[in-house]
Amino acid sequence: MTASPARFDSSLSDGGAVLSPAQLEAALRDIGARRYHNLHPFHRLLHGGQLDRDQVRAWALNRYYYQAMIPVKDASVLARMPDPELRRIWRQRIIDHDGEREGDGGIERWLRLTDGLDLPRDYVMSTKGILPVTRFAVEAYVHFVREKSLLEAIASSLTEMFSPNIISERVAGMLANYDFISKQTLAYFEKRLSQAPRDADFALDYVKKHARTPETQRCVLDALTFKCDVLWSQLDGLYFAYVEPGFPPPGAWVPGAERGE
Amino acid sequence: MTASPARFDSSLSDGGAVLSPAQLEAALRDIGARRYHNLHPFHRLLHGGQLDRDQVRAWALNRYYYQAMIPVKDASVLARMPDPELRRIWRQRIIDHDGEREGDGGIERWLRLTDGLDLPRDYVMSTKGILPVTRFAVEAYVHFVREKSLLEAIASSLTEMFSPNIISERVAGMLANYDFISKQTLAYFEKRLSQAPRDADFALDYVKKHARTPETQRCVLDALTFKCDVLWSQLDGLYFAYVEPGFPPPGAWVPGAERGE
Repeated sequence: MTASPARFDSSLSDGGAVLSPAQLEAALRDIGARRYHNLHPFHRLLHGGQLDRDQVRAWALNRYYYQAMIPVKDASVLARMPDPELRRIWRQRIIDHDGEREGDGGIERWLRLTDGLDLPRDYVMSTKGILPVTRFAVEAYVHFVREKSLLEAIASSLTEMFSPNIISERVAGMLANYDFISKQTLAYFEKRLSQAPRDADFALDYVKKHARTPETQRCVLDALTFKCDVLWSQLDGLYFAYVEPGFPPPGAWVPGAERGE
Repeated sequence: MTASPARFDSSLSDGGAVLSPAQLEAALRDIGARRYHNLHPFHRLLHGGQLDRDQVRAWALNRYYYQAMIPVKDASVLARMPDPELRRIWRQRIIDHDGEREGDGGIERWLRLTDGLDLPRDYVMSTKGILPVTRFAVEAYVHFVREKSLLEAIASSLTEMFSPNIISERVAGMLANYDFISKQTLAYFEKRLSQAPRDADFALDYVKKHARTPETQRCVLDALTFKCDVLWSQLDGLYFAYVEPGFPPPGAWVPGAERGE
């Protein structure tokens, strides 16, 4: 049994002391440094060119469900915002993913990746081949933003603080290592390089402004930890099913299932 | 990559024909034969004595959360039942798990197992060391019974049709193979040998009586498939984290963490 990465120091913001906004930001960045999914072995294999085409297909197929549910998640957040100014800012996330018209937007760009990997769109969009853990983790995220406070819902989006690094690494690594991946099929990520920092800056400012007690700061840190778990557990599932030991759950995609084989 | 077990034959009850109650029962049993978690490699290791004590501890610790949430799940089902007669029957499940008084009931009996494995009760009950996938899968079950129809909520309990077999196998296998397991620490399962068939008989009769169209029969079959996924994915997570490759997610229990090490 391998030792797990160092555990988050839960003494931070426990026990009563209020963190300054800068300390809160540092504590959030510390969670990312320990728990963001760029540290997962599946991502190391993906970016390092050590996966075969079917393993990359499994990743793209499963991750589609996460992409497809992001606007549902953001609509759930939007529905909890009483302030039109806040809603005007947050709705841009939905527009980014759903696009201005058919054939536009982040979900469509993700489908260009699955197209490029020869996964039929109707199969991908049916989500019938995804791993149960993908479904459970993504739906946990949607339920989280519906059931927790608005502050926690906003804080759970803060993994975007860490995404530009992983995206640059991913795009460079995948283009260099896989002849079945092109700049065109990775268009999704190029857009995210400008969208994610804009979204993360806003959410981080909001959280620093509104989490001013030890209790709310604890909630914010826990929300980011939760979201890191959502991303991490999806990669655990992919690794278990398609890398080692390589045991897809009953009903999950296996190569050929997308063509009804 | 190992091939997955045979996929459920989705032609059954698709395409319009109504199944007789006996055919519906056969289709439900067929799902169990293909997807119930007794087929999972983790269970084979558990029952066959091939896990070490820490791996058994990881299983008991995680499964506690499932046990602890069952009455919450059943209360959610109860809250959707308009009929006092139905509620009188269903509430017995909550009584079985919560007990008549402190120190009684299924959750308490599960804690005797974790006691016997030297896991401190306050650590177990805090659930802070469980795998994210355990949390996501269990909560998916709770959300399912709140959001789907009452018929689907009841059908999702039908994995109990298959539990007497796995329990007999588990008790015999664990007693024979682990010197740290006793009849006393496995008391939970002995009770379930009489409770589960009573519950399953009722739920099966209900489903056979109320699912009389192709659409509702499809829903019932899908609900049982969903529930099998809930159980199966918890074992995927345990296997990945504690058997092979053995990579617990950040923050998940590792031996000693229960004592703050």
